[in-house]
Amino acid sequence: MRPNKQKKYLVGLEFGGTNIKAALFDNTPKIIQQEFQPTHAQLGVESVLKRIKKIIHNLIDKENILSNHLMGIGIASPGPLDTKKGIIFNSPNLPGWKRVPLKNVIKREFNVPVILEKDTNAIALGEYWMGNGKGVDHLICITIGTGVGGGIILNGQIWHGRDDLGGEIGHMIIEKDGLECNCGNKGCLEAFVSATGIVKRTIQALNKGRVSSLSKKRNKLTSELIFNEAKKGDRLSLEIVHETAEYLGIGLANLVNILNPEIIILGGGVSHSGEILFRPTLKELKKGAFLRGVEHLKVLPSKLGNKAGILGSIYPFFHKT
Amino acid sequence: MRPNKQKKYLVGLEFGGTNIKAALFDNTPKIIQQEFQPTHAQLGVESVLKRIKKIIHNLIDKENILSNHLMGIGIASPGPLDTKKGIIFNSPNLPGWKRVPLKNVIKREFNVPVILEKDTNAIALGEYWMGNGKGVDHLICITIGTGVGGGIILNGQIWHGRDDLGGEIGHMIIEKDGLECNCGNKGCLEAFVSATGIVKRTIQALNKGRVSSLSKKRNKLTSELIFNEAKKGDRLSLEIVHETAEYLGIGLANLVNILNPEIIILGGGVSHSGEILFRPTLKELKKGAFLRGVEHLKVLPSKLGNKAGILGSIYPFFHKT
Repeated sequence: MRPNKQKKYLVGLEFGGTNIKAALFDNTPKIIQQEFQPTHAQLGVESVLKRIKKIIHNLIDKENILSNHLMGIGIASPGPLDTKKGIIFNSPNLPGWKRVPLKNVIKREFNVPVILEKDTNAIALGEYWMGNGKGVDHLICITIGTGVGGGIILNGQIWHGRDDLGGEIGHMIIEKDGLECNCGNKGCLEAFVSATGIVKRTIQALNKGRVSSLSKKRNKLTSELIFNEAKKGDRLSLEIVHETAEYLGIGLANLVNILNPEIIILGGGVSHSGEILFRPTLKELKKGAFLRGVEHLKVLPSKLGNKAGILGSIYPFFHKT
Repeated sequence: MRPNKQKKYLVGLEFGGTNIKAALFDNTPKIIQQEFQPTHAQLGVESVLKRIKKIIHNLIDKENILSNHLMGIGIASPGPLDTKKGIIFNSPNLPGWKRVPLKNVIKREFNVPVILEKDTNAIALGEYWMGNGKGVDHLICITIGTGVGGGIILNGQIWHGRDDLGGEIGHMIIEKDGLECNCGNKGCLEAFVSATGIVKRTIQALNKGRVSSLSKKRNKLTSELIFNEAKKGDRLSLEIVHETAEYLGIGLANLVNILNPEIIILGGGVSHSGEILFRPTLKELKKGAFLRGVEHLKVLPSKLGNKAGILGSIYPFFHKT
């Protein structure tokens, strides 16, 4: 096969403790090739780095791309990190990672510009670029999965803050002395509304002897299962969902009162539960936020789903940031 | 006296439910004349507008300034408001105010450019310009008095948000189902750490029969008095101060996790209590915020005190905003 000499290409990659997602984009940008693999984070830093390089090589090789046709590589990674230096400091889900200079490692391997961004920021950029945040200057994108992360876009730019910590929405404390969070604090938004938090609260209720269709499945509880049982009318599940909405609504109201954005986008596994969560969340949001702040506010689900991150990771190659 | 023809002048004015503060500035900007008067808000909109105009006239007349030497008038007012249209919507402390086009009223009277800004934003701008926020690009200024307000400066610009609601930090909910706030919600930062909230919590404790040196003064309690008794060692007062620091520390930690600023400035009456509040607040802040977010963070008292607002109100005449 002859290499395609007409086009320029980009690789976008997002990884976390569980999976590595990557795609080869042309410069329109359209996805040409995709790769999806487990991270096997437990095998350590070197193993994950090797795997990341391999995936990028695969994407390039499959399309037979000459190295001078690759414009750059965007990487979306868990934080905390330093986007300017391209270093990942550490991550609860990446055992052994400590000040890993990922940007330089990849740059050295492929000899192209590499941009590192926090995963939740890349997701926000993706939605801003091509998703439900298109055409909007000020938006907040919240990813509710195992944890809760956020990306804040103000005046069309990711708000990184002084130390790349901007947008750590999941660790906003909304109930002093509340439920313990994985971060060590109490009462963080994440402790209540993350998939982990939802399951934890349900188990606590079951342990108190609550009757529920979930009782038989208590060893394999997931937030998805709880939402499904709620849809079927299980009382405890409905209570858990309603409580989740209360906490999430408070979190959103706080963000509206502090930042007064135009749009809030909710992504991640938990947000896929749909109207059963969205409707009561909006009600709580309206109760907690200034009236003028919600009059024109839109709260929307993610449009791009799990493509938002890889797309957002290459956004800076197309725009001045 | 001959008018001074060499100089250009500006008027900065800040008003609320209680007082009107105003100053005539030269273009260095140095304060040439000051006025300080009660608002007498209960007399209604027209009366307050008349009083505001009169104060500005006084300042100009005293210095015998020709109208073409007045460059503009900056006004810092309570919100909610529309800074672009120059309208004050309503304010709990300004009875009868409803969509008052203050900017145009003043413009018509003096025939110079008028800029309207929310009071807490003007205070933040003042501190950023000439106070403890000088030279810093990203700062949050929190004013803790009767209520709790905030001004957020990002990249050297006030963050107004979509509807001029940005920075309503006082109504961030930090304790779900907590103490009732004047806004109608429960558990807002303001409900706990404002002067009003501190007094309210103290009265609640006294009503529960707590012994305290404050018991005899329960009808004339102020937050100042409570801080003073705490300094003298009164146990209940110390508890109230410590609890205030816990709540304030959570509020600051949330702001650090969301926005990761370089500096937080604390102003307003309650912040004048000094180290007895600052020290435990910083401890709580460090507990609640991401380590990297507090490593380089400075938390400072206001430098300009009650001059910050009038100074900040004229800031836009000197800088592009």
